[in-house]
Amino acid sequence: MIAGFPRAEFERRCSALHGHMHADGIDALLLTTPADIFYVTGFLTRFWESPARPWFVILPAGKGPRTVIPSIGAPLMAEGFTDDILTWDAPHPTDDGVSLLSEALRAAVPAAGTLGLPMGLETHLRMPLADWGRVTQSLGARRIIDATHTVERVREIKSDGEIARIKATCALAAKAFAQVPDLVRAAPRLDAVARGYQAALLHSGADWVSYLASAAGPEGYGDIIAPAGPQPLRSGDVLMLDTGAVKDGYFCDFDRNFAIDPPSACVERTHKALFEATDEALAALQPGLRACDVHRILAEGLVARGAQPGGGRLGHGLGITLTEWPSFTPLDQTELRAGMVLTLEPSAQTRPGKLLVHEENIVLRADGAELLSPRAAPEMEVIPL
Amino acid sequence: MIAGFPRAEFERRCSALHGHMHADGIDALLLTTPADIFYVTGFLTRFWESPARPWFVILPAGKGPRTVIPSIGAPLMAEGFTDDILTWDAPHPTDDGVSLLSEALRAAVPAAGTLGLPMGLETHLRMPLADWGRVTQSLGARRIIDATHTVERVREIKSDGEIARIKATCALAAKAFAQVPDLVRAAPRLDAVARGYQAALLHSGADWVSYLASAAGPEGYGDIIAPAGPQPLRSGDVLMLDTGAVKDGYFCDFDRNFAIDPPSACVERTHKALFEATDEALAALQPGLRACDVHRILAEGLVARGAQPGGGRLGHGLGITLTEWPSFTPLDQTELRAGMVLTLEPSAQTRPGKLLVHEENIVLRADGAELLSPRAAPEMEVIPL
Repeated sequence: MIAGFPRAEFERRCSALHGHMHADGIDALLLTTPADIFYVTGFLTRFWESPARPWFVILPAGKGPRTVIPSIGAPLMAEGFTDDILTWDAPHPTDDGVSLLSEALRAAVPAAGTLGLPMGLETHLRMPLADWGRVTQSLGARRIIDATHTVERVREIKSDGEIARIKATCALAAKAFAQVPDLVRAAPRLDAVARGYQAALLHSGADWVSYLASAAGPEGYGDIIAPAGPQPLRSGDVLMLDTGAVKDGYFCDFDRNFAIDPPSACVERTHKALFEATDEALAALQPGLRACDVHRILAEGLVARGAQPGGGRLGHGLGITLTEWPSFTPLDQTELRAGMVLTLEPSAQTRPGKLLVHEENIVLRADGAELLSPRAAPEMEVIPL
Repeated sequence: MIAGFPRAEFERRCSALHGHMHADGIDALLLTTPADIFYVTGFLTRFWESPARPWFVILPAGKGPRTVIPSIGAPLMAEGFTDDILTWDAPHPTDDGVSLLSEALRAAVPAAGTLGLPMGLETHLRMPLADWGRVTQSLGARRIIDATHTVERVREIKSDGEIARIKATCALAAKAFAQVPDLVRAAPRLDAVARGYQAALLHSGADWVSYLASAAGPEGYGDIIAPAGPQPLRSGDVLMLDTGAVKDGYFCDFDRNFAIDPPSACVERTHKALFEATDEALAALQPGLRACDVHRILAEGLVARGAQPGGGRLGHGLGITLTEWPSFTPLDQTELRAGMVLTLEPSAQTRPGKLLVHEENIVLRADGAELLSPRAAPEMEVIPL
């Protein structure tokens, strides 16, 4: 077992990547982010929180992953899906893995061959830019191309094991959401509830809580990304908590709204529109639709019920990171395929500058959507203050 | 107030950056990471957990920050130290802020001028690499240079307000460490203790817990970056918890070791060496030393007590991220200056493959080190099982 998965899980992942690499004319992949490296090797650690060190995984065509990493990670990497671990003592002020990585890339990619790495939407290269310049200098005539889709077309189709993990993380969040009324009654302040809710996630069995958004206000909220402040929760507020807990390396990402004392007619109406538009999308989703179709279905569902859709995306992929591609926007043409794990996240204005956001997590099956988050109740839960 | 700081804090930060930019011949800085952006604007959010969107801050010479960000961040950014916020609807599949950023950079940097961005050790460019290529194409003859030190020489000197925050976060961790014996007795399993300790940090007042390392074993531990597993804690184990909690945007990063039942003579001896070597370093630290001197002081202090120093760095900077430069390695020549917040983190082998790590957080004052973490007890705390 590797990171709790059978070894065959990683064989399948690498083999799928090899297939796409072949199709895309790539001799080796270079991966640098926590998610990509966990995906191919099972290397799971919170040590990424330190920006001090870069980590590299090379996946050569037809071969297993070759890792080029700081020495401190060698014992953990040795438990992963690789038997090829090169290390250096990082951080090194003048050669922080550059010569080791360059040599490994030259060995993996023929002199007139092609190196692929993710450089497109939603990606970044997690290493110093100047060092990347030095690496590319050392590669001579080798071509360097964008492998964003090479990786995405594989990672976006979740295995049964991955789906089970995301569903398990969703269940932990549901358990913690059930404690919110008690938390509000104990200390009706946004920051206190945000702290207590994170603790509840841990007590429910989350390994860690990488993300929590919280907001509250009369008729909804305007800003959904600010940290929780000491704002008192008042009668008439809608309280929203949006969870990115992690268990065994996989995220959930769904929210719940709570009315502090019975909600206004406008909040009730808007919430009903969000709930019903989500139901419509759940019924309509099927492989072959495009991401932009889901945006349209949700937006039209809201408009048909007299609600005004919020700006921005109305859902996205989910898995090893809190958010993955595609994005449910009018512009995203990504084709939906069976095995994708997605969030439906419609939002609607209650009045200018005030929103409600409703979110569920699903897996797309050959015959349609299957919920991974336990479906919210049709009516917003009321917490009497 | 911005992010809890007086506005003057940000005026001072930007003015200090302007001074270094002038000295380094930089017409504008481009910043893309959560830490750099929080530092100059006060923009603090956990939304960075989503890799979907890039965020940009441009600091032109002599002017305030100009921000180029996804629309979803505009309300929060408007509370920050900027009155210049350009937005686009992200993620956008074909132009994810590229043309907006390019135009803003061309406006900030004269046609024959110089753009600086961090590209050195411990940095990365948080945006898609292909988009960066498009931006540089658009900049014509403008020079692009490494501004790692331009930013570091400013960020590394913490203000009184920053030091107070780090000290406050350390105090929260100390409060949570006091609960570890109860947690161990309640459920003597590494993962249960790791969960309970994170919840204790939240209950103590941490906003969130971005990092926790935990390990346990007889005579110490080998791997300090693996996630906590269901390993039972047994008589004779040393349990280590290393905390990266966050309060008001600032980290602590220190650990504590606990003996499960009385420790072996070797553990006692090694812990004593770590404690005393730390005391020596606390007494010796002063501005003007170099990072490599601190490594030498700690390593020699351990050797003098018959202990074998662990590999890797023996401490580092601390602040907005869990780890900051410099690194206490034999190679790091960074000069220590008053106002730096640092960790002393000596490690020593108890036997091949087994370590103890001891860590404290300090601020360097003109007359020497001042502890920010409440100093550990000289003897390892024993938890009778």
